[in-house]
Amino acid sequence: MNRPSPSVTVGALPASEKIHLPGKLYPDIRVPMRRIALHPTAGEPPVIVYDSSGPYTDPKAEIDIRKGLAPLRRGWIEARGDVEPHEGRPVQPADNGFAEGARLVPEFPRRRQPLRARRGQAVTQMAYARAGIVTPEMEFVAVRENLGREAMREAAARDGQDWGAAIPDCVTPEFVREEIARGRAIIPANINHPESEPMIIGRNFLVKINANMGTSAVTSSMEEEVDKMVWAIRWGADTVMDLSTGRNIHNTREWIIRNAPVPVGTVPLYQALEKVGGVVEDLGWEVFRDTLIEQAEQGVDYFTIHAGVRLHMIPMTVDRVTGIVSRGGSIMAKWCLHHHRESFLYEHFEEICDIARAHDVSFSLGDGLRPGSVADANDRAQFAELETLGELTEIAWAKDCQVMIEGPGHVAMHKIKANMDKQLETCGEAPFYTLGPLTTDIAPGYDHITSAIGAAMIGWYGTAMLCYVTPKEHLGLPDRDDVKTGVITYKIAAHAADLAKGHPGAQQRDDALSRARFEFRWEDQFNLSLDPDTARDFHDKTLPKEAHKVAHFCSMCGPKFCSMRISQDIRAEAQKEGMRAMAEKFREAGEIYLPAGGAE
Amino acid sequence: MNRPSPSVTVGALPASEKIHLPGKLYPDIRVPMRRIALHPTAGEPPVIVYDSSGPYTDPKAEIDIRKGLAPLRRGWIEARGDVEPHEGRPVQPADNGFAEGARLVPEFPRRRQPLRARRGQAVTQMAYARAGIVTPEMEFVAVRENLGREAMREAAARDGQDWGAAIPDCVTPEFVREEIARGRAIIPANINHPESEPMIIGRNFLVKINANMGTSAVTSSMEEEVDKMVWAIRWGADTVMDLSTGRNIHNTREWIIRNAPVPVGTVPLYQALEKVGGVVEDLGWEVFRDTLIEQAEQGVDYFTIHAGVRLHMIPMTVDRVTGIVSRGGSIMAKWCLHHHRESFLYEHFEEICDIARAHDVSFSLGDGLRPGSVADANDRAQFAELETLGELTEIAWAKDCQVMIEGPGHVAMHKIKANMDKQLETCGEAPFYTLGPLTTDIAPGYDHITSAIGAAMIGWYGTAMLCYVTPKEHLGLPDRDDVKTGVITYKIAAHAADLAKGHPGAQQRDDALSRARFEFRWEDQFNLSLDPDTARDFHDKTLPKEAHKVAHFCSMCGPKFCSMRISQDIRAEAQKEGMRAMAEKFREAGEIYLPAGGAE
Repeated sequence: MNRPSPSVTVGALPASEKIHLPGKLYPDIRVPMRRIALHPTAGEPPVIVYDSSGPYTDPKAEIDIRKGLAPLRRGWIEARGDVEPHEGRPVQPADNGFAEGARLVPEFPRRRQPLRARRGQAVTQMAYARAGIVTPEMEFVAVRENLGREAMREAAARDGQDWGAAIPDCVTPEFVREEIARGRAIIPANINHPESEPMIIGRNFLVKINANMGTSAVTSSMEEEVDKMVWAIRWGADTVMDLSTGRNIHNTREWIIRNAPVPVGTVPLYQALEKVGGVVEDLGWEVFRDTLIEQAEQGVDYFTIHAGVRLHMIPMTVDRVTGIVSRGGSIMAKWCLHHHRESFLYEHFEEICDIARAHDVSFSLGDGLRPGSVADANDRAQFAELETLGELTEIAWAKDCQVMIEGPGHVAMHKIKANMDKQLETCGEAPFYTLGPLTTDIAPGYDHITSAIGAAMIGWYGTAMLCYVTPKEHLGLPDRDDVKTGVITYKIAAHAADLAKGHPGAQQRDDALSRARFEFRWEDQFNLSLDPDTARDFHDKTLPKEAHKVAHFCSMCGPKFCSMRISQDIRAEAQKEGMRAMAEKFREAGEIYLPAGGAE
Repeated sequence: MNRPSPSVTVGALPASEKIHLPGKLYPDIRVPMRRIALHPTAGEPPVIVYDSSGPYTDPKAEIDIRKGLAPLRRGWIEARGDVEPHEGRPVQPADNGFAEGARLVPEFPRRRQPLRARRGQAVTQMAYARAGIVTPEMEFVAVRENLGREAMREAAARDGQDWGAAIPDCVTPEFVREEIARGRAIIPANINHPESEPMIIGRNFLVKINANMGTSAVTSSMEEEVDKMVWAIRWGADTVMDLSTGRNIHNTREWIIRNAPVPVGTVPLYQALEKVGGVVEDLGWEVFRDTLIEQAEQGVDYFTIHAGVRLHMIPMTVDRVTGIVSRGGSIMAKWCLHHHRESFLYEHFEEICDIARAHDVSFSLGDGLRPGSVADANDRAQFAELETLGELTEIAWAKDCQVMIEGPGHVAMHKIKANMDKQLETCGEAPFYTLGPLTTDIAPGYDHITSAIGAAMIGWYGTAMLCYVTPKEHLGLPDRDDVKTGVITYKIAAHAADLAKGHPGAQQRDDALSRARFEFRWEDQFNLSLDPDTARDFHDKTLPKEAHKVAHFCSMCGPKFCSMRISQDIRAEAQKEGMRAMAEKFREAGEIYLPAGGAE
């Protein structure tokens, strides 16, 4: 691998080529996809899969994280004629926690003037959608979601249970526009993050996943975080959230955004709290507003805002097993309690919307009172907050702002569907974005798995984006391996959900891989998998020889017991014998048990 | 750790003590449980958890795998007066694949005369149950399932959706008897495996898990297999299946059974095939019958029998994406096709039952036609076989034999429930025992996760035992780490199912762990988890210092952003302020959004 300095992981995945499809309304857009070539003996076309990895997996792209990615969307944004560059808010020492000298993460080398909406105009995808405008972003995601579906040999079989979703056979730009206009989907796309490749989050599209990163007071460095982002999207993260705390928040975030081809989300409250020295009581609207503007001008694509935590709900959490486990939620609850008033997030929500509207920052309305244990799931506090989030959604929509709603948390399986149903009903079908949920509390060290179970289920029921959980959840900070494990685990959950919803074409990859498995095309099986490196490595541990990769048996069973091999013999025999005719004969003989000697 | 030679893993789990509870009908039975001590500051009683690990985790037990475990059940079996010792079938060179000299796994040093039923009597738990007899085995499992539930401080909250199960508040020996009599549960307990600690498999009991082991022609050794069994039960496997192929099958199995405190299952067909040199066509009733007797006399507790694969079903698999993926299923299909007749398993099923009846070997009726890809799920072949398994269940029950039914396989989420419903309906509520199911095909290397999703769901719907899948599935043979990962992953799935079914008391461990988490009792959090070693190790990677294990903050967030800590402040403040009164005041103020400046 070619490792520029500072180093990030680049290079194509095995047997994969990055291709770009054009639009029809906008012929110049280049929508990236990954095309996986199969072995010539397969006699099958390549398999096209969704590709969130950006230019890092394109050998033709020149990567230099000191320059950042090309501003793909800049021309589209300017062409709309509704934004203006300006000086922007100057960076202040507090933005980086007063870090100085060697402790200060260096500024990103290039500075671009931020853009903002002219004269209070709404520059959001929702505003355009409502005005009947199909933007390049909308066509981009339409092409992206289809994955070349139109060109597939066989019509996609529709087999699934969609729980009332409205998934079209083929995603058109107009369908995207309609979904955004009615608030059922969002394209997080800050006008100051032109490097991002548009993606859509909504119940009628492919289920997406988010990976959290971020430095903390305890550990981490800038370079590590940029590489973690590149690493996360390599394996399939659709968005990343920068949850940094401590010093250097501003500069680290700048490095991440300038190099991120995916939307970047934040919880602005974390930085605001750093600015007031970590004293919750000293938070207030001014410092929060300042932080929103700082981040909106940098290009943050979505903000988690914990405006749903209201004063009267806090007592509902007192008898919980685990109280309030959302960091933002607990901070706001403490603030409300101390000041004996509603939070500045709730009171100033319309002004928050105005900032979002002027930069197209989407909202992820935070579930500050989500349950932190199965004991606390679906309780009064959680659902009271969800109702408030529904009210806030209406306010944001009235300002043309894009909204998604955050969800739990820790929820045993039988209580998961109620969360989805209540969210759909309460929040006007705004996209749901859940953390897991974890289906049991007893497996720290394996919470990627306890939560993948819940994530797959709630994704099936209608959640639009799943926030990953790594094996280190509750225990420590995820390293590179944990990030990969978390992302792959959540790609599994999201894909399992797509299959169960009957998303057209979702099963194509499963079928291609299963055919490869049945035909002993080991290389194809590895290459089609979510993690080709691990699949190959595991195989090689048992049967390391190259020759075994063309072996017509499984390493698990050895040649004599290989069901696949025997199955192929059966298929061959069937063709010889005219199996169907034979079957008829035996069907006539009846299906009732005949004791020994009675049959034939 | 104390490692006797040949070495197996012994020693208690952290903070854990093995306790034994007596029966009331049978005061001499000693039912093992694991009691996890909490830190004195918890002010809580110890937590008692189910313990499948046998004497290996009891520091008081003397372990020598050359002697085997004590024959716990021997007295109970003899006291019934319906069995007789006899010479038994002599071991033949073919039983070990004609291995000789250094290639022959040594015989187990002790030989006990096998037992069999006198004069055609049924010595099965089902026969006793139907005769109204509560056996020591039945009381043993009743005590075991309750986990000292009667003694718990608080009444167990019943919160769940059980999909028509009939889970009692407290398991009585009489309830166990009834469930076994009607075929809804089984206690796999061969009279020649007196070392086993009885356990029960049924929809109205805790969900169980099985771990597969076994040597193959490709790799593995005897010692490795015994240790793998001990290792699997240490982490929670409730039964093990010995799926050995190749040489030394007989001797390896003897070592495993003599040292296994859990039921051992096999697929006798594998050994029968070895005896005929791997030539499927040469299989027949005689060699199969001989193998059943050999294994019944050794003490195998349950047999997988693929008698449901019938001739007329084979053509139904020809157009599948992955044909027949069950080893046993493919072998029988090939045999049927070659001989153009129904299988010897189907034709001789009543005689098979007679052997099972004389030793109390339970049946696991194999799903030879289970789907090997999501494309093939719930197809005609699969369900046709399931119907035959229902017919065979009736035959086995008429002979007083205990039966469970094997299930898929690869099934997308939306098709899982149909499997459970059809199994319940077709097989008279005989316990269902499923492999996964895997909910997508695209993640080789992570199939413990793709399948844990399906396993948790089908466990919730009513499956009684889940067969684990390791990360090496489809790719290679599981090593020690894979076995542990597979077992822990399936303990998660089984426990998530117990929670969702509303199993009384299941949530106690979750709640205890969550309280420990909330109160920063790190050691308690580790000790209560399914894998204390990994939880502790992950924590130490971020915050290695001993001092941090009493730290009042999460390693994830650092002290300032710790929601748990803030939550505790809130709770303290609430107590001070009279939170409830305050809440009333704010509720009166209304819950409608008030723009900035309008509130307070």
